[in-house]
Amino acid sequence: MDKLKIIPLGGLGEIGKNMMAIECGNDIVIVDVGLMFPGEDTPGVDLVIPDFSYVMENKSKVRGVAITHGHEDHVGALPFLLRQLEVPVYAPRLAHGLVSLKVKDNKRGESMLHTVDSGDIIKMGDMSVEFFRVCHSIPDAMGLMIRTPVGAVIHTGDFKFDHTPVDGKPSDLAKLAEYGKEGVLLLCSDSTYVEIPGYTPSEQIVSATFDHIMAESTGRVIVATFASLVSRVQQVIDSAAKSNRKVAIVGRSMSETVAMAQKLDYIRSPKGTLVSFDQIKHLPAREVAIVTTGTQGEPTSALVRMANKDHRQVQITAGDTVVMSATAIPGNQTVVSKTIDNLFRLGANVLYERIAMVHVHGHAAQEELKLMMSLTKPKYFVPVHGEYHHLVLHSRLAQTMGIPAENTFVMEDGDTLEITAKGAKRGERVSAGPVYVDGMNTWKPDSTVLRDRRSLSNDGVVVVVVPVDTETGYLVGDPEIASSGFVDAKQADELREAAKEEIIKALNQGVEHNEWSFIQAKVKEVLGKYYYAHTKRRPLILPVAIEV
Amino acid sequence: MDKLKIIPLGGLGEIGKNMMAIECGNDIVIVDVGLMFPGEDTPGVDLVIPDFSYVMENKSKVRGVAITHGHEDHVGALPFLLRQLEVPVYAPRLAHGLVSLKVKDNKRGESMLHTVDSGDIIKMGDMSVEFFRVCHSIPDAMGLMIRTPVGAVIHTGDFKFDHTPVDGKPSDLAKLAEYGKEGVLLLCSDSTYVEIPGYTPSEQIVSATFDHIMAESTGRVIVATFASLVSRVQQVIDSAAKSNRKVAIVGRSMSETVAMAQKLDYIRSPKGTLVSFDQIKHLPAREVAIVTTGTQGEPTSALVRMANKDHRQVQITAGDTVVMSATAIPGNQTVVSKTIDNLFRLGANVLYERIAMVHVHGHAAQEELKLMMSLTKPKYFVPVHGEYHHLVLHSRLAQTMGIPAENTFVMEDGDTLEITAKGAKRGERVSAGPVYVDGMNTWKPDSTVLRDRRSLSNDGVVVVVVPVDTETGYLVGDPEIASSGFVDAKQADELREAAKEEIIKALNQGVEHNEWSFIQAKVKEVLGKYYYAHTKRRPLILPVAIEV
Repeated sequence: MDKLKIIPLGGLGEIGKNMMAIECGNDIVIVDVGLMFPGEDTPGVDLVIPDFSYVMENKSKVRGVAITHGHEDHVGALPFLLRQLEVPVYAPRLAHGLVSLKVKDNKRGESMLHTVDSGDIIKMGDMSVEFFRVCHSIPDAMGLMIRTPVGAVIHTGDFKFDHTPVDGKPSDLAKLAEYGKEGVLLLCSDSTYVEIPGYTPSEQIVSATFDHIMAESTGRVIVATFASLVSRVQQVIDSAAKSNRKVAIVGRSMSETVAMAQKLDYIRSPKGTLVSFDQIKHLPAREVAIVTTGTQGEPTSALVRMANKDHRQVQITAGDTVVMSATAIPGNQTVVSKTIDNLFRLGANVLYERIAMVHVHGHAAQEELKLMMSLTKPKYFVPVHGEYHHLVLHSRLAQTMGIPAENTFVMEDGDTLEITAKGAKRGERVSAGPVYVDGMNTWKPDSTVLRDRRSLSNDGVVVVVVPVDTETGYLVGDPEIASSGFVDAKQADELREAAKEEIIKALNQGVEHNEWSFIQAKVKEVLGKYYYAHTKRRPLILPVAIEV
Repeated sequence: MDKLKIIPLGGLGEIGKNMMAIECGNDIVIVDVGLMFPGEDTPGVDLVIPDFSYVMENKSKVRGVAITHGHEDHVGALPFLLRQLEVPVYAPRLAHGLVSLKVKDNKRGESMLHTVDSGDIIKMGDMSVEFFRVCHSIPDAMGLMIRTPVGAVIHTGDFKFDHTPVDGKPSDLAKLAEYGKEGVLLLCSDSTYVEIPGYTPSEQIVSATFDHIMAESTGRVIVATFASLVSRVQQVIDSAAKSNRKVAIVGRSMSETVAMAQKLDYIRSPKGTLVSFDQIKHLPAREVAIVTTGTQGEPTSALVRMANKDHRQVQITAGDTVVMSATAIPGNQTVVSKTIDNLFRLGANVLYERIAMVHVHGHAAQEELKLMMSLTKPKYFVPVHGEYHHLVLHSRLAQTMGIPAENTFVMEDGDTLEITAKGAKRGERVSAGPVYVDGMNTWKPDSTVLRDRRSLSNDGVVVVVVPVDTETGYLVGDPEIASSGFVDAKQADELREAAKEEIIKALNQGVEHNEWSFIQAKVKEVLGKYYYAHTKRRPLILPVAIEV
């Protein structure tokens, strides 16, 4: 009996780095290979990517990767996978363009990339993947109809039902209805905004706000948004053109994305509207619009540099209007607030989501999620994309739509679901979870490196150099002490002599064993106590042996 | 000519640690002495308190401290001030009770505390302070009418206009109207929720939700809220009583606060409703309600321990309903989400602000802020309490109410405003800003300790022990290298020998000066380059000299 396995490898139970393996017999189809940006509990980490172990252990089965759209949390980890695995990747045209930018230094990787259009059906072993159009906050987003020997799986990707999207290409309701008729075994549907009742407003609302801002502002209008929010850039261009403003793109990532989107015809600009920064420099402020990045308060972004009076090209002045066209991602609110504050301090008027309709998000709200279920009529339901509570709420929503509770599965990364003609049940867990990319290294969550960094960041470090006789284990000189991030230089001086005395006393008071590990433990113990008593802090104590 | 000075010392331009000095002639009145909890950019810091320099430099003038209400961001730094300054403190009864708990180990501090009731007028030098009732998310909150030789200043404290508050004591509209008639020179008004149009909903809405939850849930109901949200605890008790549930308080800070509030009659429980945990332990789940803390995801809070299966008394099971009756403060959203996820994983049903009406906040929205201005008719306006963008938006709101732009002042901590009969203008800045309490130490924002901690947390530390001849500056032995939070043990071993070679080569290649500072700089330079080339990381390099 054929068995279908659904194995989320990223993005279930937490936001970001989406990846899923769909396995049937000897074939595996991978859906998306995303990354996420690290949080404050992983200091120094550059990126978070999925754990590829399961895929690599089964690499002979992998028939292809299907990409739903070009956002980082769906494609960002592809370059890491393609360094390890030779596999064809099928992506919508814009996603393909954006991924190409990332793998351009990997000729072999580039050769694995293929473009698809909506309606294309790609054969992957005994399975096939049909791409269908959905709306999202990037053009050219697709959902997947994956036909398998056991039945059809629909993976929505990120989606919403905007009947009046910027690019004029709404989600393909007719196709979804056809799939529903054909029969859908399993629906995997986007859960990100399941908490929100009703419908997500159309992008049209944002266009109306932009039109108003561009027409009414007497100074420059600077719109910050995500580099990947290509349709938002289109909206700025359209509104600017109506108000006779020229638009310049500021910032490297935004410029690259826009250039790619323009080349592929996903951004269209009335002749002479989209120009270089040099061409707007000397125009009257009333004729200028700028598009840039920095809505998440990223320290090196153009907008944050502008807010800190540290941007090479753009100086914020009174009369400027700054539009933050994005939601602050949880965890970023504090830095975003600071950026808004600094822009206000420079005299700009700042418009942001809480006080103006300058952003709508790209995910379906409750009524849209229900519409997806109504159209596709799945037998089984797995909520995808979202934190655990989103998944739970989405599975409950599915139950209100008549899908039996025993046919809905709240899964987390590494869980497996096994479906046969007889039914569906949970299978064995596979290796999954975050992999932290840190410079040239990667760490797993249990890494002592990250644990040490967290400890260092709270209380600093004290280094103790202990001169020992390796034969006897006895102290043969005065210990040296240095610290960083612990107390200030003055207090460090004050504490140093007494701390040395503590060590000498402890080590001379009968060392039972002369192994370094014992000496080390003893030093940590006495110094830990001494410092806590005098500072109420627990610095990381790092003893170093010097053999003399 | 008399001159009135308004000097914000905390809470303007950022959220939290509210404090203001109001100075006229030889007299200073201090309004509130709050603290705030540190953000992620100040690792290891326990608390943030205001800079007391200005107050201490002028301590002979300080006539008294007027406290508006008992929240930490308004009273939390009082114990620190009272250790340095002998001054009478006037606080509403509940705030007084809560502060007493904090200074109970400081007899002298305790003796400075006095209670006031609404309508009380306290003479402070040539000024006087009248306390008037306002609604906020703690009972017994007051605004201040401060009469000075130059004119009257109204400081609203934190407020909203709830016409049906839990304790039945609405903001005193009549009094505010009287003040308006008497004449108000300056209004200092709460800006925290100026972004929100309309009115803040009444606490009644929360009571209705609680009634429903308590009646419908078949298991235990566990409500988490702020320890200081005394009226919310009252609401839980009232709803529980209606549904024949007993209520137990779990968690030390919540228990202390509730005990104090009960003693002072700010919490009233129908006989037998509020009981100890032991008394609910063996009751059927349907008859149990629990109130606890942890809505901000604080790792040591009761709710987070429950979510992590790590609480001594309460084990979460399927059937439990957990109510998060609070807003996640920006910066805490990620940990709050994780707590909600873990509670769902244990099978609880979790209700939180985004999906149920289980919380209303304690601050005035736009229409209430306008009402405050309409009633008091101030000549000058200073928005208080809020981040800089809140203050800007509030000053604009004042202008829509007819207060001329030149009479509204957006101030930040340390700014001064000078008002005389002739007019108002900005004066010289005074010392202000955050002071970080770190164990037994305090740091200013420019502290190298905090800078080092941030650096340690990103890339870890490498210690290099350099044996030098103090006479010649020559290396007289092999350097030793140890690291923490940098790379894993295996890679550290791999890098060690080559790194030592780099040092030996660098120091033997002609050391121009034999001072330790030169050797140190050289070691940092060569190792920094070496490590970056091999790991793309920049650990903090800490050379320690050993003289032999």
